[in-house]
Amino acid sequence: MEATEFTVELVRKVDDSYPVVVGRGLEKKIVEVAGRGALADRRIALITDSTVEGLISAAIAREFAAAGRPIEVIAFPAGEINKTRATKEWIEDQLIARGFGRDTLIIAAGGGVVTDVVGFVAATFTRGVPYISYVTTLLAAADAAVGGKTAVDTPAATNLIGAFHQPRAVLIDVDRWHTLSPAQIQDGMGETIKHGCLADSEFFEVLEDAFVRRGLSPKDFVDDDDLTSLTARRNCEIKRDFVSSDVFEGNRRMGLNLGHTIGRALEAAMGYTMSHGQCVAVGTALQMRLGERFGYCSAEDVERFEALAGAIGLPYRLPDSVSVEAIMAAMAHDKKGVAGTIRFVFQKGIGDLMVFEGGAYARPVDTQLIREFLAEQSRG
Amino acid sequence: MEATEFTVELVRKVDDSYPVVVGRGLEKKIVEVAGRGALADRRIALITDSTVEGLISAAIAREFAAAGRPIEVIAFPAGEINKTRATKEWIEDQLIARGFGRDTLIIAAGGGVVTDVVGFVAATFTRGVPYISYVTTLLAAADAAVGGKTAVDTPAATNLIGAFHQPRAVLIDVDRWHTLSPAQIQDGMGETIKHGCLADSEFFEVLEDAFVRRGLSPKDFVDDDDLTSLTARRNCEIKRDFVSSDVFEGNRRMGLNLGHTIGRALEAAMGYTMSHGQCVAVGTALQMRLGERFGYCSAEDVERFEALAGAIGLPYRLPDSVSVEAIMAAMAHDKKGVAGTIRFVFQKGIGDLMVFEGGAYARPVDTQLIREFLAEQSRG
Repeated sequence: MEATEFTVELVRKVDDSYPVVVGRGLEKKIVEVAGRGALADRRIALITDSTVEGLISAAIAREFAAAGRPIEVIAFPAGEINKTRATKEWIEDQLIARGFGRDTLIIAAGGGVVTDVVGFVAATFTRGVPYISYVTTLLAAADAAVGGKTAVDTPAATNLIGAFHQPRAVLIDVDRWHTLSPAQIQDGMGETIKHGCLADSEFFEVLEDAFVRRGLSPKDFVDDDDLTSLTARRNCEIKRDFVSSDVFEGNRRMGLNLGHTIGRALEAAMGYTMSHGQCVAVGTALQMRLGERFGYCSAEDVERFEALAGAIGLPYRLPDSVSVEAIMAAMAHDKKGVAGTIRFVFQKGIGDLMVFEGGAYARPVDTQLIREFLAEQSRG
Repeated sequence: MEATEFTVELVRKVDDSYPVVVGRGLEKKIVEVAGRGALADRRIALITDSTVEGLISAAIAREFAAAGRPIEVIAFPAGEINKTRATKEWIEDQLIARGFGRDTLIIAAGGGVVTDVVGFVAATFTRGVPYISYVTTLLAAADAAVGGKTAVDTPAATNLIGAFHQPRAVLIDVDRWHTLSPAQIQDGMGETIKHGCLADSEFFEVLEDAFVRRGLSPKDFVDDDDLTSLTARRNCEIKRDFVSSDVFEGNRRMGLNLGHTIGRALEAAMGYTMSHGQCVAVGTALQMRLGERFGYCSAEDVERFEALAGAIGLPYRLPDSVSVEAIMAAMAHDKKGVAGTIRFVFQKGIGDLMVFEGGAYARPVDTQLIREFLAEQSRG
């Protein structure tokens, strides 16, 4: 018998577009968004963590009840340590026990851990149900909120198991930033200044004016209506500009990894005792210093970045306690790396990225060169 | 501060088309398919179950080694009972421990349990890696192989957690059917005759000729080159025709659920002691009997179906041991059901489906009417 071959044709147009709403006191707005189109007929599960639950779930439940649409609230223990397959399984079992099925609409309310793990739950519950993200932290507004990446960690690495699953809407409630600690604001500013670096020199200048020249504290920042609104909006818009042309991270989306090659490795090498935003700030600074040697950006650019990071209270040097070999090992282990090569995104000054041969946004850098560079930086 | 709203535009054309290869001795063919396009640069993990491993992994590994492309083999304990989140997690940890990353190509080798759980692993490993299905059973050729549905079971229900993740290629190796028991062949024929019922009267007649008129045994069937080839091909083609126009089961794909409303409920009510194919055969027969009352198909159609099922050795009546209430409860619980309504797909004779108001392939049936119908059938 000869083998026969035929094709399953699956060419289709997909529209995963969704709105991002930036504002204050958006509890009512969630009800409106959850009532749009076919979402209106779904049963709602509000899924959050134990910290956020006490702050918001009663208010949101009240708004839905007032609209005649009761919701169920499910809360898991807060913390990155709970961003696991076990937590995902527990949430699934909660949904099943409460009778949720294919007609579920999930609202993920919280920071990046919540939107990552709950978005992943939504991606695989009955093979996918819609979800809305109600985002409560600056870091999540800058990082997890837009892009459709969902994931959990494993003991071996962060974000290793997950899915691309776009939310139906993202609501950034800037009022929630009042409940963040100064450290959490700084954390979010790590990703925020990275966005200025890679795509928006004007936004970078606004931040310089606020933090370097006017000396704003994290608390001042949160009270500044215009600045917080601009920060939430530009973070999401810049991220959108990168992801909408490259949903599955083929190339352009890689640009968002500016500062992350060293940043993520540093995070792992420090055993996750340094925050993501802090590590990204260090990674971005070191990428600039390395890039300066390659002639990609100027010494003045480096100084401007370090001045802004410093004014915000973010580190821009390797901590003394970390070993270069631990960073190298973590870089080699990073899942973004494809067998043996370490790739960097580089800035071309403030507000622009280097584009390499063939339009690539990342270029390989020789391992030995990285090792020597880091050894030198860690002595500094 | 006024809320501002902007849109993340994500409109794109997606091409998930893939080839289906039907033949015998396809070990070499896997190597060729795994070398197509960008798949050629990936590291390969062959994932299978403990039963299939002994039968095929050495031969496949040998073919890849001969082509200069070594593979890793991962095998989990065979059986539907292991189609769980725990097995998925174990496979993931195996992949991670062996250093697999984003550049992984997975080959899922086995029956429906393997392609379902391994396809789901592929869907979420580093947020999705490509996979090829090497399908070893008739049931999987008829059911799981084409369509991109992947899933695991939970204690509460089958296939409740999963994803749509299309394979890059499906290989149906009919040689593997020689290793199946007569019960496994019958099981696969349950879904096969369902396909004849819903879309292909000619194929149904070929099967009638083989089993009713010529009295073929399952063993005769497996030895018949033309018949097995036609069976593999028509199963996949009919499934393709339904899924390619409706990837996410909006409506037309529902047609494939012919016989499954009662079939799946019977399976659950019997505590999974009856095979899927047997339950689908009963479900299809009862759907016809119910449809006959509604004037959708004729008494002769019902007789033809029952004669064919009987000749193959498949049941077409409710077993004495099952309670109507247990079936009703399972139907109410089925995740396909949207709050309170039970929906049926019905045949319009042999080889065609009823299409209802607004082009719908499923219609609701009154719960009390179903209960009375089943009570009557269970007395029969």
